[in-house]
Amino acid sequence: MATQVVLGIDIGGTNTTFALINKEGSILFQQNIPTHQYVDAKQLVSRIKELLDDELHDKYELLGIGVGAPNGNYYKGTIEFAPNLQWSGIIPLAQYFKEQFSVPAYLTNDANAAALGEMLFGNAKGIDDFIMVTLGTGLGSGIVVNGKVLYGHDGFAGELGHVIVEENGRQCGCGRKGCLETYSSVTGIKNTVVELLSQSSEESELRGFKNEDLSGKIIEQAAIRGDAIAQKAFGITGEYLGKALANIIAITSPKAIVLFGGLAQSGDLIFKPTEYFMNRNVLKIYEGKVQLIPSALKSNEAALLGAAALAWREIG
Amino acid sequence: MATQVVLGIDIGGTNTTFALINKEGSILFQQNIPTHQYVDAKQLVSRIKELLDDELHDKYELLGIGVGAPNGNYYKGTIEFAPNLQWSGIIPLAQYFKEQFSVPAYLTNDANAAALGEMLFGNAKGIDDFIMVTLGTGLGSGIVVNGKVLYGHDGFAGELGHVIVEENGRQCGCGRKGCLETYSSVTGIKNTVVELLSQSSEESELRGFKNEDLSGKIIEQAAIRGDAIAQKAFGITGEYLGKALANIIAITSPKAIVLFGGLAQSGDLIFKPTEYFMNRNVLKIYEGKVQLIPSALKSNEAALLGAAALAWREIG
Repeated sequence: MATQVVLGIDIGGTNTTFALINKEGSILFQQNIPTHQYVDAKQLVSRIKELLDDELHDKYELLGIGVGAPNGNYYKGTIEFAPNLQWSGIIPLAQYFKEQFSVPAYLTNDANAAALGEMLFGNAKGIDDFIMVTLGTGLGSGIVVNGKVLYGHDGFAGELGHVIVEENGRQCGCGRKGCLETYSSVTGIKNTVVELLSQSSEESELRGFKNEDLSGKIIEQAAIRGDAIAQKAFGITGEYLGKALANIIAITSPKAIVLFGGLAQSGDLIFKPTEYFMNRNVLKIYEGKVQLIPSALKSNEAALLGAAALAWREIG
Repeated sequence: MATQVVLGIDIGGTNTTFALINKEGSILFQQNIPTHQYVDAKQLVSRIKELLDDELHDKYELLGIGVGAPNGNYYKGTIEFAPNLQWSGIIPLAQYFKEQFSVPAYLTNDANAAALGEMLFGNAKGIDDFIMVTLGTGLGSGIVVNGKVLYGHDGFAGELGHVIVEENGRQCGCGRKGCLETYSSVTGIKNTVVELLSQSSEESELRGFKNEDLSGKIIEQAAIRGDAIAQKAFGITGEYLGKALANIIAITSPKAIVLFGGLAQSGDLIFKPTEYFMNRNVLKIYEGKVQLIPSALKSNEAALLGAAALAWREIG
């Protein structure tokens, strides 16, 4: 008998990755194609179909499709005005996949997909109320309430990265100022390092770097070697994040908050200050109730597993 | 045939009000008893039963009971450590009602009950995603997601009044500083007036009042008569509220935000600045999507209708 699988797809600005994934979250087949080569999204879908034809014919029974995409709208199955994709306007991508493969297809944004992946295959197994925070170039979030992703009336809920945490703070890509992601993200910590370096004459190995050459990893390594500027930058990043988490706890009262992404991999450097400021600022009735935990998903698999989790959940 | 009703109960520190309410939200019978006279919560329940016996025997068929109470926990049906009630510890009040009346009984906190009342009988009819904000002595909130109250993992979600909006801001009753309710509530606006008066020598009819004699109504009337300090106080109250709403919109993406309570009755004085700062600070994808509307519930009925709505929903 053919193995039952879903197709998980991670649409990125540069590459699109897709994989056949079973119910246990094992990736059985995986491939990449360059997103930008497909001017029409329908062509990308056709190409994926071609590349999977042999596999699907022989070994697997495809039950459904899940897509994680930037600016993805779950309710409509569309990608809407994604600044990092060459497809402009509103793209009914779930519909294209459904037509091409003749199975149900679902779509959501990256951070919501990651939350579903964590719930089915990661550290949020069995937790009905949690928040997934992805600390990458920006800060994404997927909020799970009572076992379901919180989508809001329009499908766009869960933008924790765009909560304003500093009046007249740093300029954000969204056009406003002081959003959380301008502080608590890889971009944020780099800017914090640059600010700290300009404000003091303290010695730091990070002085050797141009802003654009800095990375989360470089700052992490400096902090591990005892660089005070790098350590302070992690502290500030965690302080903003921890305070914002204390506030969001008062809204959705989660049992756990899962940190994922580049910065989350820096371990204690980011977890310690975040936890400290979260606990210090949280309302008494929530004290000691909320676990701050790392994601169990591998960074190169999370998006695919999240997309697959969406499909598995929907086809039930 | 006997009319089908539920029993709605509003537990307050001073009085407990209870009423028989039909499915259309009409109050068919209503009475008050002083809460503090009943040292044991069970006695209060027995007394309510006695007072209703004739009514229930003759005219009505009781289908269920809904209780709105401070520090109410929906999951457990308990009141937990309510500072304004004389019952200490954890009181399984829903259980007491269930045993006494032999019908299902449900309990939630005041603000969540108000949200349910608004959804069944008020301006949030047919709206699946909205936030109810009660602007009284404090600031309470009930958040509805996908047609259901957001309770969180422990039953205590939705404490918008305790989001910290000002670092090292005003002292809050919760022990922390800068909570939204220290600015955007009746207590908040009174403190704002006192601050404004102490910071300037501008003429104001409010100078005649002691802090404890001020009220939302007095400030409202002064503002209507053109008192600049009173008007400025409403502006500041709305500014804090509007900015906090802009942030919470990024979390739950509601279709509407309903304002209820003493301050909400001041109409444009509070709605205009709140709306202005909400729209000015909200992330672009939510712009123009969220209505800020007044509650349709009468202030003296809202708690009862909310409690009744809880019961109707559950037995639904």
